Amino acid sequence: MSYTLEQIADHKTTASCWVIIRNKVYDVTGFLFDHPGGAQVILRYGGRDATAAYEPVHPSDALDKNLPPEAHLGNLSDSAVQELKEAKQNVTKTREELRVEEARNNKPPLSRMINVQDIEDVAKSILPYKAYAYYASAADDEITHIENARGFGRFFFHPRVMRPVSGCNTSTTMLGYKSSIPVYISGAALARLGHPEGEANLTRGAYKTGIIQMISTNASLSYGQIAAARGSPDQPIFFQIYKHKNDETAAKRIREVESLGYKAIFLTVDALIPANRELDHRSPHYLEDFENQGRSAKRTEDAEEGDVDILGTAGGLIINNDVDMTWERTIPWIRSVTKLPIVIKGIQCVADAVLACEAGVEGIVISNHGGRQLEYALPPIEVLYKIRKERPDVFDKTEVYIDGAIRRGTDVLKALCLGATAVGLGRAFLYAQSAYGEAGVVKMVRILQREIRFGMESLGVRTVKQLVPEMVERVDWQPVSAKL
Amino acid sequence: MSYTLEQIADHKTTASCWVIIRNKVYDVTGFLFDHPGGAQVILRYGGRDATAAYEPVHPSDALDKNLPPEAHLGNLSDSAVQELKEAKQNVTKTREELRVEEARNNKPPLSRMINVQDIEDVAKSILPYKAYAYYASAADDEITHIENARGFGRFFFHPRVMRPVSGCNTSTTMLGYKSSIPVYISGAALARLGHPEGEANLTRGAYKTGIIQMISTNASLSYGQIAAARGSPDQPIFFQIYKHKNDETAAKRIREVESLGYKAIFLTVDALIPANRELDHRSPHYLEDFENQGRSAKRTEDAEEGDVDILGTAGGLIINNDVDMTWERTIPWIRSVTKLPIVIKGIQCVADAVLACEAGVEGIVISNHGGRQLEYALPPIEVLYKIRKERPDVFDKTEVYIDGAIRRGTDVLKALCLGATAVGLGRAFLYAQSAYGEAGVVKMVRILQREIRFGMESLGVRTVKQLVPEMVERVDWQPVSAKL
Amino acid sequence: MSYTLEQIADHKTTASCWVIIRNKVYDVTGFLFDHPGGAQVILRYGGRDATAAYEPVHPSDALDKNLPPEAHLGNLSDSAVQELKEAKQNVTKTREELRVEEARNNKPPLSRMINVQDIEDVAKSILPYKAYAYYASAADDEITHIENARGFGRFFFHPRVMRPVSGCNTSTTMLGYKSSIPVYISGAALARLGHPEGEANLTRGAYKTGIIQMISTNASLSYGQIAAARGSPDQPIFFQIYKHKNDETAAKRIREVESLGYKAIFLTVDALIPANRELDHRSPHYLEDFENQGRSAKRTEDAEEGDVDILGTAGGLIINNDVDMTWERTIPWIRSVTKLPIVIKGIQCVADAVLACEAGVEGIVISNHGGRQLEYALPPIEVLYKIRKERPDVFDKTEVYIDGAIRRGTDVLKALCLGATAVGLGRAFLYAQSAYGEAGVVKMVRILQREIRFGMESLGVRTVKQLVPEMVERVDWQPVSAKL
Amino acid sequence: MSYTLEQIADHKTTASCWVIIRNKVYDVTGFLFDHPGGAQVILRYGGRDATAAYEPVHPSDALDKNLPPEAHLGNLSDSAVQELKEAKQNVTKTREELRVEEARNNKPPLSRMINVQDIEDVAKSILPYKAYAYYASAADDEITHIENARGFGRFFFHPRVMRPVSGCNTSTTMLGYKSSIPVYISGAALARLGHPEGEANLTRGAYKTGIIQMISTNASLSYGQIAAARGSPDQPIFFQIYKHKNDETAAKRIREVESLGYKAIFLTVDALIPANRELDHRSPHYLEDFENQGRSAKRTEDAEEGDVDILGTAGGLIINNDVDMTWERTIPWIRSVTKLPIVIKGIQCVADAVLACEAGVEGIVISNHGGRQLEYALPPIEVLYKIRKERPDVFDKTEVYIDGAIRRGTDVLKALCLGATAVGLGRAFLYAQSAYGEAGVVKMVRILQREIRFGMESLGVRTVKQLVPEMVERVDWQPVSAKL
Repeated sequence: MSYTLEQIADHKTTASCWVIIRNKVYDVTGFLFDHPGGAQVILRYGGRDATAAYEPVHPSDALDKNLPPEAHLGNLSDSAVQELKEAKQNVTKTREELRVEEARNNKPPLSRMINVQDIEDVAKSILPYKAYAYYASAADDEITHIENARGFGRFFFHPRVMRPVSGCNTSTTMLGYKSSIPVYISGAALARLGHPEGEANLTRGAYKTGIIQMISTNASLSYGQIAAARGSPDQPIFFQIYKHKNDETAAKRIREVESLGYKAIFLTVDALIPANRELDHRSPHYLEDFENQGRSAKRTEDAEEGDVDILGTAGGLIINNDVDMTWERTIPWIRSVTKLPIVIKGIQCVADAVLACEAGVEGIVISNHGGRQLEYALPPIEVLYKIRKERPDVFDKTEVYIDGAIRRGTDVLKALCLGATAVGLGRAFLYAQSAYGEAGVVKMVRILQREIRFGMESLGVRTVKQLVPEMVERVDWQPVSAKL
Repeated sequence: MSYTLEQIADHKTTASCWVIIRNKVYDVTGFLFDHPGGAQVILRYGGRDATAAYEPVHPSDALDKNLPPEAHLGNLSDSAVQELKEAKQNVTKTREELRVEEARNNKPPLSRMINVQDIEDVAKSILPYKAYAYYASAADDEITHIENARGFGRFFFHPRVMRPVSGCNTSTTMLGYKSSIPVYISGAALARLGHPEGEANLTRGAYKTGIIQMISTNASLSYGQIAAARGSPDQPIFFQIYKHKNDETAAKRIREVESLGYKAIFLTVDALIPANRELDHRSPHYLEDFENQGRSAKRTEDAEEGDVDILGTAGGLIINNDVDMTWERTIPWIRSVTKLPIVIKGIQCVADAVLACEAGVEGIVISNHGGRQLEYALPPIEVLYKIRKERPDVFDKTEVYIDGAIRRGTDVLKALCLGATAVGLGRAFLYAQSAYGEAGVVKMVRILQREIRFGMESLGVRTVKQLVPEMVERVDWQPVSAKL
Repeated sequence: MSYTLEQIADHKTTASCWVIIRNKVYDVTGFLFDHPGGAQVILRYGGRDATAAYEPVHPSDALDKNLPPEAHLGNLSDSAVQELKEAKQNVTKTREELRVEEARNNKPPLSRMINVQDIEDVAKSILPYKAYAYYASAADDEITHIENARGFGRFFFHPRVMRPVSGCNTSTTMLGYKSSIPVYISGAALARLGHPEGEANLTRGAYKTGIIQMISTNASLSYGQIAAARGSPDQPIFFQIYKHKNDETAAKRIREVESLGYKAIFLTVDALIPANRELDHRSPHYLEDFENQGRSAKRTEDAEEGDVDILGTAGGLIINNDVDMTWERTIPWIRSVTKLPIVIKGIQCVADAVLACEAGVEGIVISNHGGRQLEYALPPIEVLYKIRKERPDVFDKTEVYIDGAIRRGTDVLKALCLGATAVGLGRAFLYAQSAYGEAGVVKMVRILQREIRFGMESLGVRTVKQLVPEMVERVDWQPVSAKL
Repeated sequence: MSYTLEQIADHKTTASCWVIIRNKVYDVTGFLFDHPGGAQVILRYGGRDATAAYEPVHPSDALDKNLPPEAHLGNLSDSAVQELKEAKQNVTKTREELRVEEARNNKPPLSRMINVQDIEDVAKSILPYKAYAYYASAADDEITHIENARGFGRFFFHPRVMRPVSGCNTSTTMLGYKSSIPVYISGAALARLGHPEGEANLTRGAYKTGIIQMISTNASLSYGQIAAARGSPDQPIFFQIYKHKNDETAAKRIREVESLGYKAIFLTVDALIPANRELDHRSPHYLEDFENQGRSAKRTEDAEEGDVDILGTAGGLIINNDVDMTWERTIPWIRSVTKLPIVIKGIQCVADAVLACEAGVEGIVISNHGGRQLEYALPPIEVLYKIRKERPDVFDKTEVYIDGAIRRGTDVLKALCLGATAVGLGRAFLYAQSAYGEAGVVKMVRILQREIRFGMESLGVRTVKQLVPEMVERVDWQPVSAKL
């Protein structure tokens, strides 16, 4: 069955809503109110081609998973395909599109990247604003986001000298899987917003450099596509899950990734409710103003007066989460579904680290979601330090990971000295693949490895096990960076 | 009886001073030296029309309350009315008037406001300078004003995870009256400087959102007009009082508001003497220079060489206050006048919080008047924290409120964790109604409610009672805001 | 005897050096190497008119005190006087002179000055650079100078409410002499650099406002002229002395001031050696560059390569001081010369405060010379706080004063709460008299009095005696000033 | 034997590589992979004249030490010499060369230098960028580099008054050798990058001022040339050594300097591995962009994608170091080679200071290599302070030196109060000789001496022995410098 554009055009209401995606026609009427991003965003494309908006934020299996077969109405007619193609060619590029094109053409060569921040800077310059705003945004006034980084600054080293360091080895294991450096790729959503190959860049880069990738529930490739991008079936990958409030839906997801060969379940517990990420929230207005070159354009009153809903890209991702999880109920339930090790991601205080141990999980991630959820959550390095001081037994009972604002080998080493097994980088890897694809990911790992090895040698150790709490000190002043 | 402009023009001295207000003629000779703002400011308008200056800073019943019937001389003649009207039309707008007009025409739509600061920023851009200077000014170098806000920054959360939070409820009670969120509108003077409907915007906004308004002694609408603006007779409103040094005058005021249906008396004890608010003080000079476009105009020597009186809008408000109040005398005296609950507003140290408990008042407000009175008063959150540490029994004996520099849901939650029942916002609501009238007030409450609920859910609680001191920590560093 | 310019012109070497001052001719050959400022600066004017350079930095009796009668050679001839006058008229004004003239013509009226900093700002804009550099300069990187001020910022108040404050009285006594506010004018050199009437402005302003002036050894009026400027013989004035290394010379100076009616001796002990005040030191080069408008003029190699002497105005003032004073020797020696009370100015640590008590002096001034001597001396308020904590008995044994960076009534009150009797302002008063003469001095005292009274009332006290340590707290953070 | 340019031109590969240096021809094929800076940098000059690049970074004896006699092929032919000369004249100056020329022509006279920072500022303005980047660079984000300086800022003085200070003497001894001030010239590489006479400027300046120079292993003059530059055979000089991993090579070096009259061995233990000095690393790219005046030139992809080697000038210096030194093995081994006193340079924590004492060395230098090696090493003054607090016995067992970010006499005095014997300045002296040659070195010492003497007098001491820990206090705030 094939359709003309005219036939489709009328179906643009909640009564009947059709969209075109990759020259196929779908009836999404029944799905409108199940859409995690809300009905409104679909209706904006009702009766017309939605491909450009749909593509970068949905994995390839999203239509199959979410629509019944009968909603797959058929194809566009050949003439309609031709019409769409021509229309696309005739569209004038927006100022934003021209800016991005220009920036991409002038980005510095990868060889000039000598630290993680360099790569982030390039990525921020070449990302479409919408993607930038989604990746970079943090909660409220971004204080926790900033303090995550400043927190590391309060930890100084006690380097040891006159110790043999030849043959220094940066490798470690996570949940029994080997990693070339004590760093993993933390699950972060929507990699295809930054680069067409998205999460696969990370998978391939991880393989080449021997590190482990954790995949986000909200990946923009399907879990299967990512598993298929592995360099070998032995390449370990982990899964980050937002537990759906419906246990059966959640169980189905866990079983899917387990059967695809994922090796661990990282259960996120700190981001169950949409947060106030203002950069992301303001992004549509920013772009509107940008296109108008600052001229006082007709300002759209696009929200009700009293409306305080969260907009932006993030708005649609966190939905249907189980906000009533408990240690008593949820951990045993996961155990009943899978034999994979369980790691709790989002521990933010000592008391919960202790409860996690009592619940018998294989690991915890000290994390405040990169400062994207509750403003004034403590910096992870501070929480780690508190656990070390108040409850060092935690490190004997479970593996401890940490993420948030890690940029340097010295950040990694501070966490390891205090007891962490490895540290996660999320945004940094998104930036790397956005700016330089797979090569950017490889380069970033190489940079970190060089910095970690140098740091270990300078501290006087040959293996990560030799990194001990006595090698770091929390000082009572805040350093100033010349680069800020 | 009716008058021509010529007849009035001669009466402009302390010997005989007449003014025109809303086309009526008043003999204010006898009142000159009782005027809280001083005789000088009236004499400036002696013998002519004072309406524009008079209106926004006086409630409608001010003339009736302050002038004897015989001073109400009569009306302007019709031709005089006509003359005034024409004169007004012929007046060239000042640069300042044009600036405000332009700013108001270009203010962003309310839908773009996503946090409290956004609204303040808009208000500051559209307020007449004089109003801005009065609202925004703080004491001396504004250090306490700034530190009030920075103080909140030193408190971080210990968020709890894996706790059920569905159905999270932000409501609480104040002195037994229900409030939809633990936030009230703190009494702040002269709302009509910012918006023609003034305090009524706040009353109506409070009704729509289910929060409680405290009304200032120096409101620019009469206490009756505000009471009449309530959405229903049950809507609770509180009264903030500056006790007049004459007990009988003070008692009359209390009895008036009680009979109008006000439900509590908040006695201000920290702002009995005019403070050095330099922005307000310098406001006349700023405007003079602004009109001259920076050109070196003839500078008026408008004060005696040795003169160090406080000028500005605030100058006239704090006067005739009782500066000799004591716990022993004043509290029993109020009890003798009214059965309403008494709250002491302006507690600034632990010792006085304890004395207030011993005096048996129903509540205290930890406040330094928004940094507008004594420079280097401690930030309220620090005082609250000290009471929690040193005298936690205070929280069992009286309700504790706090105000000053609250901008975010997280600020509110920190105060509640430490033991506060609710927090007051004064200037923020003035800005909201200045910028967007009643709708601005509603929007601000909605924003705060969203932030408070999100914060509660992220901390792992379902009710405000579950917020406990263990959930906050005072850290030993000062965060940096990206937005400063 | 009278001289032509030609007759004088040849005498410009160390063999014979004559100068013209106020149309009189002096042979200064014998004095060259006793000149506190060094021979070089005199030789620069050898054989010609030195009046303009000489006048503002020497008291009127300097020639009489320092030159023997026979060195007073006689007068200029009438034609020489005429020649000098014409030459002066033909001189083109320098850029710097034009700048100062312009700035003075445009300075804001005194009525606009509402705080101490306002006046300092005006003074800095209208002072000749050389005077500015001398007044404003501090040691090395000016860290102690800045920290003196920041130190006060770490002290916050515990204001008390519900206490009667009507009739609040700001007066106190110093060494038994009454002062209208707990503030004195600290001795600071060379007031005539800033205003032709110099120290007399301070004396008259002190009289009008009822405060006490301390006069510097390096005053630019003679001690007698200053004594004569008093409003009445009862007006108390104090003397600040740099003890000459020759006891007899020093004794002569003490006896002179005692006989002139000075009431106390403040012995400076922290500024016996010329310090590295770079602003002052660089001042000649700055002016040279300024006249050249930044054009790369021929740079004068005006010092030997290895030369590291201190230049600038200050260079010549501190010389011939007794650098070997001891508690054991010096205090008894002063007692043997005079009955006046002795105050040690320049105490910078607790141990020396205790030694001063043991030496039985009537008072100490905690001071680091306004940050003009040893960089990294502790801020005076910190030293005061340490004495209060570690040796509170000091306050029972001697009067304690403090100076350095006091700008606000709140600064004064913090010092008084901690135990100080009064505080000194030096530079601030120099600025006041430079900008506005005597009226500026009066205005500054009025401002301080208003701020002190307001602060006392806000703290809940009626007299300075009621200011107690419990009213201040040293906090563990540093406030940020909006005005910095 | 003599060669034409054509004959040489073909030898530019790893198979056969010839270079011209000072009109002599060398076959460096066999040395390519022993070159500390790597083969690549030599190959860049293969087959042509390498003099300009070679000269400033190699001592004069480098060719003799490193090449066998047969590799000294012979001379350029006369015509070839002429050709090279003409080619050099025809070369257009680069923008960078013109900038440096202009800056050198306009540098301020030495007489205007009044503190150490002044001289550094001049040096930075006149140094070629490459030299600047090598001298100024520090590790990673330069945090330790900055914190080294900020660390001193947290130490304040307790100056003592009323103590005799005439005849104050700044001299001390180091390892038994006299020094006019407690300051030495710390070994820093490649002085000829900044000035043609390089390290000899330092040697001569040290002689003139009576201080001691430590010479770097990586000096750009030969150890013999430096020894020969001494003012007398008695002038003490010390040697800083990077121990070669081959013991015999290392022993040869030690014996060489001992026989040349060097008086002590400072063994560097904190800089055995090339660090990430980004300014230096980025220097080639900076210069490329600078020549292109910011125009988007063809960016060279000059490194492999995954390449993370350290580039820049420093890259080639640290190589072949012994990274497996131990207290047990290395110290006795040095003792077996030489009788000279041994000082360990690069102690960064208390534990290693104690181990050094136990190893019986004559001294330690608390140093983090000027922030050029491990980022987040503690500031030396903090390590010194910790040793004073935790293990004061260290000061009885060995001499303690300190270097890093010392700029002022007060910095020196703080270190001495805490127990240091003397302090080292490295970069500062490189800057001094770069900007003003030997005269700059002399001036810098004079400045420091003036500042140290003034500080001693102001603290109330006459000798360095009288400087005691009670005279300094570590404060709990961070000062702000007006000059930052």
